[in-house]
Amino acid sequence: MINDIEVIKTKSSKINEVDFDNLKFGSVFSDHMLVCDYKNGKWQAPKVMPYQGITLDPSAKIFHYGQSVFEGMKAYKDAEDNVWLFRPLDNCKRLNISSKRLAIPELPEDYFMEGLKALLEVDKDWIPKKDGSSLYIRPFVFASGEGFHASPADEYKFLICTAPSGSYFSGEVKVLIEEKYSRSANGGVGFAKAGGNYAGQFYPTQLAKEKGYQQVIWTDDNTHEYIEEAGAMNIFVRINDTLITGPTSDRILDGITRKSIIELAKAEGINVDVRKLRVDEVVEAAKNGSLKEMFGAGTAAVISPIAGFGYKGEDYDLPKMDDTYANFLKKRITDIQTNKAEDPFGWRYKL
Amino acid sequence: MINDIEVIKTKSSKINEVDFDNLKFGSVFSDHMLVCDYKNGKWQAPKVMPYQGITLDPSAKIFHYGQSVFEGMKAYKDAEDNVWLFRPLDNCKRLNISSKRLAIPELPEDYFMEGLKALLEVDKDWIPKKDGSSLYIRPFVFASGEGFHASPADEYKFLICTAPSGSYFSGEVKVLIEEKYSRSANGGVGFAKAGGNYAGQFYPTQLAKEKGYQQVIWTDDNTHEYIEEAGAMNIFVRINDTLITGPTSDRILDGITRKSIIELAKAEGINVDVRKLRVDEVVEAAKNGSLKEMFGAGTAAVISPIAGFGYKGEDYDLPKMDDTYANFLKKRITDIQTNKAEDPFGWRYKL
Ligand SMILES: Cc1ncc(COP(=O)(O)O)c(C=O)c1O
Ligand SMILES: Cc1ncc(COP(=O)(O)O)c(C=O)c1O
Repeated sequence: MINDIEVIKTKSSKINEVDFDNLKFGSVFSDHMLVCDYKNGKWQAPKVMPYQGITLDPSAKIFHYGQSVFEGMKAYKDAEDNVWLFRPLDNCKRLNISSKRLAIPELPEDYFMEGLKALLEVDKDWIPKKDGSSLYIRPFVFASGEGFHASPADEYKFLICTAPSGSYFSGEVKVLIEEKYSRSANGGVGFAKAGGNYAGQFYPTQLAKEKGYQQVIWTDDNTHEYIEEAGAMNIFVRINDTLITGPTSDRILDGITRKSIIELAKAEGINVDVRKLRVDEVVEAAKNGSLKEMFGAGTAAVISPIAGFGYKGEDYDLPKMDDTYANFLKKRITDIQTNKAEDPFGWRYKL
Repeated sequence: MINDIEVIKTKSSKINEVDFDNLKFGSVFSDHMLVCDYKNGKWQAPKVMPYQGITLDPSAKIFHYGQSVFEGMKAYKDAEDNVWLFRPLDNCKRLNISSKRLAIPELPEDYFMEGLKALLEVDKDWIPKKDGSSLYIRPFVFASGEGFHASPADEYKFLICTAPSGSYFSGEVKVLIEEKYSRSANGGVGFAKAGGNYAGQFYPTQLAKEKGYQQVIWTDDNTHEYIEEAGAMNIFVRINDTLITGPTSDRILDGITRKSIIELAKAEGINVDVRKLRVDEVVEAAKNGSLKEMFGAGTAAVISPIAGFGYKGEDYDLPKMDDTYANFLKKRITDIQTNKAEDPFGWRYKL
């Protein structure tokens, strides 16, 4: 059990340089970071220190073999300046699930939780209060051990950095249902938040952008007949009044937003169907008018409504509606996250 | 076209600390490295400088999104101290093929070739002369651009580092034919030398090691019925007197050793069959005695003979033979690489 976390404070805060009313997403970083090293077969004591560059040997395995995992979470400040996290233990657990698959040593839960608390305590002034803004939190682990040998490293670094952030997406999102490229294999690392999964998405996403879409809807790599994820989010499709999302698998990330939306929607009496979803079915529903909504779900964007999709050279628009599940559920979940509503699920975590 | 590459020499060479008679693989690094930065939309002039640590912001995308690719090649010194490379332009081309898939800007060919030559010129004393040893060369590119946003970076670093090395594997290699895990998806990044592909292999390989195997034979992610690669090598199987290897695909790396072996074997009158290879067929051949050899092929190990394999809980031993294709082809290819034999293919490249 970790008791006292050493804190080395910065001598010159950058907070006055930041325009908290016009924050982008994840591009301004707070004054401090948490750092914890794995060496000699164990995780050493985590430390809070000034946000600063990391120096690595050119043979550090992160540069060569992609041994890295990460998490994404948010801290919110309510009207009374209380600070709230959302299901943080689930992020900690998932980090370790990802680490295990990437042959990275798992991190003791209290190193994660106590480290996070110590960091947020020091940088609490960086947590934005404005509606829609939050402190984006990025825990990550990477291989710092050295050598040109494709085998797990013997040293790692766990860091938590934070970035006061505005909302993730802006504007209308049109998506392309992918027929050629894939993000993950059966028996692969798709269920892990492994760095390499994201780099693999960039090129197909660039191609989609050139065609006028903002995101790719990933399908299974074998048949491309089943819908799996939306960019780096889980996906929900509303057909008539039923909300459908695919089951998690070794190809799909078990999103915290996704599972919260499933619970929340059920509690609100919305019919939720967790099952494999064929592209055909979505196209058919678009044609006959039963397709009402599609949206991505993830920590960064919370819920990101989809305005239309392209598939096999055809474009399909979704109806413009006032009363959407997306808006309703987004408000419900953010109200819980930001302490504006009761939290019957016990998801909110007070710092 | 690059003309003069700036060279900043180290003030204190480490070469006298190195025991060139007892080199491991890829764990001692030469005095210098080549560094080339991509920024403001273009690759800047490459520079040779002392081997040294690289400092990056914690938000550099390499730590989060796995945007990295690499190559592996070798330099050999012959009896007259001439230095030889093996098909280096193919490594340069493949680096760019990998980069493209990972949304990394491609590198001008002369930056790669002239940079490599300038580096090897400065560190030529690091190229071992001993039989079986070589200077292992590691070109790599990674995302140094910053931001917690899953999109391609705007800055990159291309480096070449080198490591005087002994042989890669030692001892007998038993392999496990994988029935559950996979290294790549259809439409994925398996054909690229992307960092993330390697990290994904570590855990399944660890599990195989715990069962007493040294490597995993990767099968297709959909059925696990076809043999694809051997660890981080291409695979060859000899049934009777025919050498079989799978065709390259978007799941399989187009290995330079593999394609050289195919050409060489054909030129030597060996029957080579490039076709999909079922696991069943190999098991059947092992049972009826027609399976003579299996070996991995790649730059690091050149050819790595397999002594036996495990599949569905059964172990199969390969016959111990004196006259193997593996030994014959390994000698043929290394003789060409090290200028001990004629090179009718024009593969050797004099520095
Ligand atoms: C591939 C992928 N799918 C889904 C999600 C959503 O997960 P969460 O809701 O836990 O943020 C993420 C992360 O944001 C992701 O990277
Ligand atoms: C996955 C994989 N397959 C095959 C090979 C063999 O390629 P090459 O012969 O070009 O070294 C490599 C690299 O060594 C590899 O990483």
